[in-house]
Amino acid sequence: MTKKSNKFLFNEVLIIGIGLIGSSIALSLKKNEIAKKVIGYSKTEKTRKIAKKKNIVDAVINKISDRISEIDLIIICSPLSTYEKIFKLIDPHLSKKTIVTDVGSAKSLIIKNFLRSKDRKYDFIPAHPIAGTEQSGPNAGFYELFIDRWCIITPIKENKKRNINIIKKMWKMMGSNVEIMAPDRHDQTMAITSHLPHLIAYNIVSTAADIENVTKSDVIKYSASGFRDFTRIAASDPTMWRDVLLNNKDALLEVISRFSEDLSMLQKAIRWEDGDTLYKLFSKTRKIRNKIIDAGQDVPVPDFGRSKKR
Amino acid sequence: MTKKSNKFLFNEVLIIGIGLIGSSIALSLKKNEIAKKVIGYSKTEKTRKIAKKKNIVDAVINKISDRISEIDLIIICSPLSTYEKIFKLIDPHLSKKTIVTDVGSAKSLIIKNFLRSKDRKYDFIPAHPIAGTEQSGPNAGFYELFIDRWCIITPIKENKKRNINIIKKMWKMMGSNVEIMAPDRHDQTMAITSHLPHLIAYNIVSTAADIENVTKSDVIKYSASGFRDFTRIAASDPTMWRDVLLNNKDALLEVISRFSEDLSMLQKAIRWEDGDTLYKLFSKTRKIRNKIIDAGQDVPVPDFGRSKKR
Repeated sequence: MTKKSNKFLFNEVLIIGIGLIGSSIALSLKKNEIAKKVIGYSKTEKTRKIAKKKNIVDAVINKISDRISEIDLIIICSPLSTYEKIFKLIDPHLSKKTIVTDVGSAKSLIIKNFLRSKDRKYDFIPAHPIAGTEQSGPNAGFYELFIDRWCIITPIKENKKRNINIIKKMWKMMGSNVEIMAPDRHDQTMAITSHLPHLIAYNIVSTAADIENVTKSDVIKYSASGFRDFTRIAASDPTMWRDVLLNNKDALLEVISRFSEDLSMLQKAIRWEDGDTLYKLFSKTRKIRNKIIDAGQDVPVPDFGRSKKR
Repeated sequence: MTKKSNKFLFNEVLIIGIGLIGSSIALSLKKNEIAKKVIGYSKTEKTRKIAKKKNIVDAVINKISDRISEIDLIIICSPLSTYEKIFKLIDPHLSKKTIVTDVGSAKSLIIKNFLRSKDRKYDFIPAHPIAGTEQSGPNAGFYELFIDRWCIITPIKENKKRNINIIKKMWKMMGSNVEIMAPDRHDQTMAITSHLPHLIAYNIVSTAADIENVTKSDVIKYSASGFRDFTRIAASDPTMWRDVLLNNKDALLEVISRFSEDLSMLQKAIRWEDGDTLYKLFSKTRKIRNKIIDAGQDVPVPDFGRSKKR
């Protein structure tokens, strides 16, 4: 390892996977002077070219070699299904001085799989920045993505406290608020706040696309009446979301069941024209919206605010 | 009827129900010089006071009397469950020279009920402006609400062509694009683009609120990860939505069934870890999002765009 400058938290950082999150981290690490050098790893030539051309990283690599033993921090930013392969690639080259972290949206299963191998000497500190857009790929990245967003770190008992604090500091320097949480609680919370909403959004957009007696153009034309709000999250990266949902299977199946039970109840209320049940439920949900606005997690957005001409 | 000025499309318009839509129409009729005088009817004293104080209408009334025979156009802007009562109130006072229209989000059942009475002389032209916000009440109204939005008119065979054109002209003067559609097709289109999304949003927010092993504060805190997008439409007016869903029962039950079937399929794919099925479906929905953006019905909104501090 070359001598570390006091100015930077890390001398060299390797980012594995230069998509929306990976490229945003790279840009933020540079912008906020957190890392002296940022290296990006991608298997895809096109991604490496964009990352280099747009100065997202200082250097790109397409092979993991012993050279990575010099690196202070490795951040895995690729889909969850790639982790096993990545661990196998980096395992032979790393000593206990390297910190490895990630940005995956589901934690428990990844941790369980990671801990299966006893040979790993490096400190793997699982983390999850709750930030994103419907865009994906290196062109979608921007350094402000993590500002005022939460980053949840879900440490494992093997982690060194000092290293947890370094990861915490990194996210704070990128503008995030950091929360420490047990992996199970993280996965349960995300099942309801993120994974179920995405699944439902994908499902409703797919249902709409299949409706035969309403032409697809009508669905597009009148989408501002509610449907539109679902299409935004249903446009998220398919590979990433396939992996996330499969990695949080148990917690997700539990909330799908609850959702389906509740929907059956509403369906029945509609069938039997039970207006009271509908009214009570619709009043309850309004209060939750107000709490979200009070908590600064959204702003009231009138429809017209998203119209092009205004 | 007093002599009509050439400048205005209507001499006097009566708006029944001064909520978000009613007050926005009143403001737009004045702003665009469509009506010389706008009168607002509300049973609620508080609403009448606000409407008067904020100059939303020129005059407020709390009783329907023979005086309404002088009015050119009556616009029903109250929840669908009030229509029967309203028709009974206005029936005795109106001749065939009056046009009555509405803004309800479901059409077929209302039309069926209206046509039951053969004594009605006035021309009832059903319409539905596809515009709204999560806010409700007279304070929520603003004259720009209908600009660049669709208004669907669903005429009945009894309507005079001349009157349909007047209603069409009114909506165009308020800035809307107008579409003429059969009531059934309207209801089927809205079932999938608006009513199901609202029902699902209400349902998911309610499911989240009931989850016991995740504290409610976590749901609020991490809502930006997807959940937030649902709370906006789940904050819509409960009375209005109860009425809309009950008034489009058949079309809605049909799309709920389709949605549930599709969800069961996804649930099964997750249970059996069938990544291919998930990937295929998630790729399909992304294309629909792009079509909506191409059609100018939404703009790409990155998450950070809704953060307070930016």
